[in-house]
Amino acid sequence: MIEDTHVGLAHGNGGRLMRALIEEVFAHHLADPALDTEADAVPIALPDGEIVVTTDGFTVQPLSFPGGDIGALAVHGTVNDLAVSGARPLYLTLAALIEEGLEISFLERIVASLAAASRAAGVRVVAGDTKVVPRGQGGGLYLALTGIGVRPRGRCLGLRVIETGDAVLVSGPVGDHGIAVMLAREAFGLSGDVESDAACVLPLTEAAGAVCGLRFMRDPTRGGLATVAHEIAGGTGKVVELDETAIPIRGATRSVCDMLGYDPLYLASEGRVVAVAAPDAADAVLGAWRALPQGGEAAIVGRIGGAADERFARVVLRTRIGGARNLPELESDPLPRIC
Amino acid sequence: MIEDTHVGLAHGNGGRLMRALIEEVFAHHLADPALDTEADAVPIALPDGEIVVTTDGFTVQPLSFPGGDIGALAVHGTVNDLAVSGARPLYLTLAALIEEGLEISFLERIVASLAAASRAAGVRVVAGDTKVVPRGQGGGLYLALTGIGVRPRGRCLGLRVIETGDAVLVSGPVGDHGIAVMLAREAFGLSGDVESDAACVLPLTEAAGAVCGLRFMRDPTRGGLATVAHEIAGGTGKVVELDETAIPIRGATRSVCDMLGYDPLYLASEGRVVAVAAPDAADAVLGAWRALPQGGEAAIVGRIGGAADERFARVVLRTRIGGARNLPELESDPLPRIC
Repeated sequence: MIEDTHVGLAHGNGGRLMRALIEEVFAHHLADPALDTEADAVPIALPDGEIVVTTDGFTVQPLSFPGGDIGALAVHGTVNDLAVSGARPLYLTLAALIEEGLEISFLERIVASLAAASRAAGVRVVAGDTKVVPRGQGGGLYLALTGIGVRPRGRCLGLRVIETGDAVLVSGPVGDHGIAVMLAREAFGLSGDVESDAACVLPLTEAAGAVCGLRFMRDPTRGGLATVAHEIAGGTGKVVELDETAIPIRGATRSVCDMLGYDPLYLASEGRVVAVAAPDAADAVLGAWRALPQGGEAAIVGRIGGAADERFARVVLRTRIGGARNLPELESDPLPRIC
Repeated sequence: MIEDTHVGLAHGNGGRLMRALIEEVFAHHLADPALDTEADAVPIALPDGEIVVTTDGFTVQPLSFPGGDIGALAVHGTVNDLAVSGARPLYLTLAALIEEGLEISFLERIVASLAAASRAAGVRVVAGDTKVVPRGQGGGLYLALTGIGVRPRGRCLGLRVIETGDAVLVSGPVGDHGIAVMLAREAFGLSGDVESDAACVLPLTEAAGAVCGLRFMRDPTRGGLATVAHEIAGGTGKVVELDETAIPIRGATRSVCDMLGYDPLYLASEGRVVAVAAPDAADAVLGAWRALPQGGEAAIVGRIGGAADERFARVVLRTRIGGARNLPELESDPLPRIC
């Protein structure tokens, strides 16, 4: 039994205390029959299809924030990477790096949140590992997750199938996660009207995936919508044109950005999808998204232009006042450690 | 191109500098066609068999030590967990948590070492993620790896098939890794005669796996041989009897332990295998191991006794002088952060 209130180095040494921590905090909440805390490696069963994997580290600070915490965020971040690749997420592995001194009751809340997010997304945490690092060498808790999923064979999504004239869509307002985490961190004296949008995007990706003419999906996390646009431009060699007036941004998020000088197009979302679709498929994706609770504010926000000229901008924003400005690639970090 | 000599927070922000770090340091050395730095999730192909997964975090300090470094160690630790489960390791995912200020040339050496260890073990690093944490909130570099492998269907290894009378074997001297890391860390003025045993154990597990009558394998990492014995005792309800004179321990490791008061039975190895085999299969496992370069000092070191009585010791050491002493479960950490 765990007698301590805070994690100590001995909780990471492979002995009795580590076993107690793993069994009472991790295995207890994750409660999966496949999660064998006494095995080195666990078997998983996969349905037919193409197996896809993804991995992600989570270092968000603070560890909990309006709308989420590092546990749920880690599940959403990992599951979403599988979902936007067109796959159904099935399994997760979890490596926890715990800083000596973390309160065990807090750790338990995070693990419970992670477990709830996993169940809601229909994924199972089947393997785990814990390490304890000395005080002053961690940020309380870091998580690294790997996701395994399966996608229908022959599903052909990717940058290489994008064509000039395709539409760019986003499933909802951008930048909320970045602002919510920032407000939870800094003492700006701003009331916390902004909640993180962190969520599993699987309903969105499945709805879009059913539309013939869908080309590409990505979740706009670190670096935001502008960074996804640069990835599209870089991967296709084509200009990406975004329409400022069409991009959904919540009023509260916009106010904070205006006040503090952030550009919401570079801020992370953790529950949104950016999609590229053939011109005649864009309305179908839009309709499918708007029919979902998470997609009510979905919008067509731009299009894929012609081949980019090395000398000119690759991502162009058509502005509110009818002009056009270059959206440069992200250089310095507006908000570090939001995931 | 990377212009900096040290990792900064901006190398983790999703923008141009992060892409340069990932492409020039990680993708360059890992050099796997499946490692698509522009994809959220990558497809993998698996041969027929039971798919097994494992995950592990690595926080070893110092980051390099006689006989290895955190990069190679992470590959060996992850691959070995698959190998002792009877599987052939095939794929790895890699999440790197880098502390701001880490020298990029050092990071490159670690990644190159990780890549070399992967190639030598026949595994491919197919997905990765990097995060940068602020100075003073990391240990230079933490790694979290997930391994995916396949084992022949119907292979029945595990604690539940162990029987009274079975033999306990170890593939080579124990405790070298723990002592090597400790000597690299502390200024004891002891000459570094001890090298880490960190290595891929796949040749050992494949040789043992071919023997009919093999029951169980595990690598004695954190907590050492004594902790594996406790896991066997706990999982079977039987006493584990170890024979002190039979356990191989290098002279240099034993000297350091004697001098500093460590018990080598609790110290980590990272390239050894503990196996349990039916009495009539033990010599075959021993012979198969001794025929390998890594297994020249393999030995039968104990046996599985009868049902354990809750009131008495579960792991018993038959001592050099003919007595018997209880080997208690590990409580306080003799050497933290050796993996």
